[in-house]
Amino acid sequence: MPVNLVAPDPASLLPVAGVRLGIASAGIKKPGRRDITLIELAAGSRVAGVFTRNRFCAAPVTVCKQHLGHVDQNDGDIRALVINTGNANAGTGEEGLARARRTCEAVAALFGGKAENVLPFSTGVILEPLPIDKILPALPAAQADLAPDHWHDAAHAIMTTDIVAKGASRQIQLGGKTVAVTGIAKGSGMIHPNMATMLGFVATDAAIAPALMQRMVKEVADVSFNCVTVDGDTSTNDSFILIATGQAGNAEIADANGADYAVLKTALGEVAIQLAQAMARDGEGATKFMTIAVEGGRDRAECKQIAYAIARSPLVKTAFFASDPNLGRILAAIGYAGVIDLDVNALKVWLGDVLVAENGGRAASYTEAQGAAVMKEAEITVRVALDRGEACATVWTCDFSYDYVKINAEYRT
Amino acid sequence: MPVNLVAPDPASLLPVAGVRLGIASAGIKKPGRRDITLIELAAGSRVAGVFTRNRFCAAPVTVCKQHLGHVDQNDGDIRALVINTGNANAGTGEEGLARARRTCEAVAALFGGKAENVLPFSTGVILEPLPIDKILPALPAAQADLAPDHWHDAAHAIMTTDIVAKGASRQIQLGGKTVAVTGIAKGSGMIHPNMATMLGFVATDAAIAPALMQRMVKEVADVSFNCVTVDGDTSTNDSFILIATGQAGNAEIADANGADYAVLKTALGEVAIQLAQAMARDGEGATKFMTIAVEGGRDRAECKQIAYAIARSPLVKTAFFASDPNLGRILAAIGYAGVIDLDVNALKVWLGDVLVAENGGRAASYTEAQGAAVMKEAEITVRVALDRGEACATVWTCDFSYDYVKINAEYRT
Repeated sequence: MPVNLVAPDPASLLPVAGVRLGIASAGIKKPGRRDITLIELAAGSRVAGVFTRNRFCAAPVTVCKQHLGHVDQNDGDIRALVINTGNANAGTGEEGLARARRTCEAVAALFGGKAENVLPFSTGVILEPLPIDKILPALPAAQADLAPDHWHDAAHAIMTTDIVAKGASRQIQLGGKTVAVTGIAKGSGMIHPNMATMLGFVATDAAIAPALMQRMVKEVADVSFNCVTVDGDTSTNDSFILIATGQAGNAEIADANGADYAVLKTALGEVAIQLAQAMARDGEGATKFMTIAVEGGRDRAECKQIAYAIARSPLVKTAFFASDPNLGRILAAIGYAGVIDLDVNALKVWLGDVLVAENGGRAASYTEAQGAAVMKEAEITVRVALDRGEACATVWTCDFSYDYVKINAEYRT
Repeated sequence: MPVNLVAPDPASLLPVAGVRLGIASAGIKKPGRRDITLIELAAGSRVAGVFTRNRFCAAPVTVCKQHLGHVDQNDGDIRALVINTGNANAGTGEEGLARARRTCEAVAALFGGKAENVLPFSTGVILEPLPIDKILPALPAAQADLAPDHWHDAAHAIMTTDIVAKGASRQIQLGGKTVAVTGIAKGSGMIHPNMATMLGFVATDAAIAPALMQRMVKEVADVSFNCVTVDGDTSTNDSFILIATGQAGNAEIADANGADYAVLKTALGEVAIQLAQAMARDGEGATKFMTIAVEGGRDRAECKQIAYAIARSPLVKTAFFASDPNLGRILAAIGYAGVIDLDVNALKVWLGDVLVAENGGRAASYTEAQGAAVMKEAEITVRVALDRGEACATVWTCDFSYDYVKINAEYRT
């Protein structure tokens, strides 16, 4: 059973002025399943995104990048996002691009805009043609469903193998104005940074200068979605989109070193971290939620390298599934992480609050009973202190169970 | 059930002049289990090795490197190897080093040599003290058991979670002399290049100059043990040792560009490849043996990078376990392998003999029935043609099953 899997309270997801969401059922994979989500943005909204680095990036990712580029060329704002589940439109060649664009055109026609004002997103099976014959007829119903308080429905409609919907909100004050931040995300398998079968959408009604949007989305992704792994696989479709509608009435944030930028970044980061952690908790087959915190490194990169080596190791993950405090597997993962001149005699490892390793081996004070007690918990932190600098990094993941194999052996059937 | 797991015919493992092997039971992990192997080498034997790059390298690896270094300082030849299962002597600090050296001293005392003439190897659980109180008393029995035809017994005695013993032999002619090459190996989980809970020992009676030994062992490892992965984890103890006793009577091989060097390298490579493939076939929980062949790359490194991305992907491995021709997962792995400027529209992918992907998507001629037919086989080749150069690389691996999780969740219990 997954751990501490709690769907967001629908009432906790705050509306964001300038954003409306509508859901419909196109029957892409299963008849009657709500698989189309439309997000409508008010004029003047700013949008920025970070996308998968997979060379086999999906058609909608290519189209998103093109349309976000058009914004800079004064082709108009992004006015709508359209998301389908059940089909990833990846590995579909020129025809896939044409179908993604055709979907944008159909959405634009509903709004009276151009295809370039629409961003498309797809998630699901790879290599199958996108069934636009099902998608296009469903779009008017999604439009008719548009409402500011449909965040929770949208969080449900973008799910694939997710067990629970993922959403989070914060409310902050910027220059005396109340600002909302709300986000939703999907993704549980094929999750790894840079970024994996995950879709994340975080919107705020704060006003922020267009020039700062790309920086903000990258900075937020780096502390959230790029810190989570389920199986190390990176998908063809991952996208994280930041929306700022500017309707809160705050003075436009134009200085990346100012207090308002920091306050907004913190709120966006909290929402994105909550969504990213929810993905690890909902990792395919997960029974445990693991936080890997590495500190005392020379730079963030080497801390992340070690954290990911632990978080990705199938041997570590199966040991956690078995509630087995198999320290050797953690130490081995630290050792092969690829930090060339690492002094293994100088580092310390804690399992929960228990010091388990130091001086190149098991800590003298450590007892197996202590380790076993920590391993019984549903949420476990592994902390590694490298003692060679000031940098740190944290990565979230889950354990590796029979059900991971089962889910992924049966996914297409 | 594992695939095509065939233990070597004991009669097929040829004696190597100058090498004797003896087995004993020290009861390290289980009473009565044969867990100590002694390999005695004739005077004048040359020995070289490659070892794990894990920063948490085990005490015996450190001692091996020191003792091989002593050879160059005229401290005498390596005259014996001692191998124990049931305990890896890793993460054991200074005391671990002392116990590895104490084991070497005890072996040296039996032979009338120095500790520096002995190489120690350990495999098993990490972080537990090496039980020399059990090992040392068992050494005389291992010595008493020494015989040239005990290769098969030794192959059994070095097993841990292996299901079958792994051994291979070749006979070649060098300058009119008959030369034997025989090797044994162990390892099924935690296997990844550079090199993972695997021990490999390949011996020949050929004469080869000491200066060429290190080059030869590296070249052989690069086409064999460094081309296999089970779970991507790299162990603390991996060692591959090449022994050349020089007793075959051939003219000493002194030219790395000469024909004799090439002939010997081919035979050593064939034995090492057979051992490496046997490890993938015997991968923990394996039901399928997979060969990932990447060709048409700019260099071997990028071919290996793509082959390993496919071979390590849990999503690809669970799809093979399910006999599901899920091409999308293979393409996604190629895409995230990290070859930055890869043109995914130029590459082709075959499953067995079936062209499954080209032009950035599914091949027009491909049918699901073709893919399903290939996936029913126990041994499957995935071939990727990059169409951007002349280099190639091949990697062997196995699928990812319920039993992998089971074996690794229960290993210590």
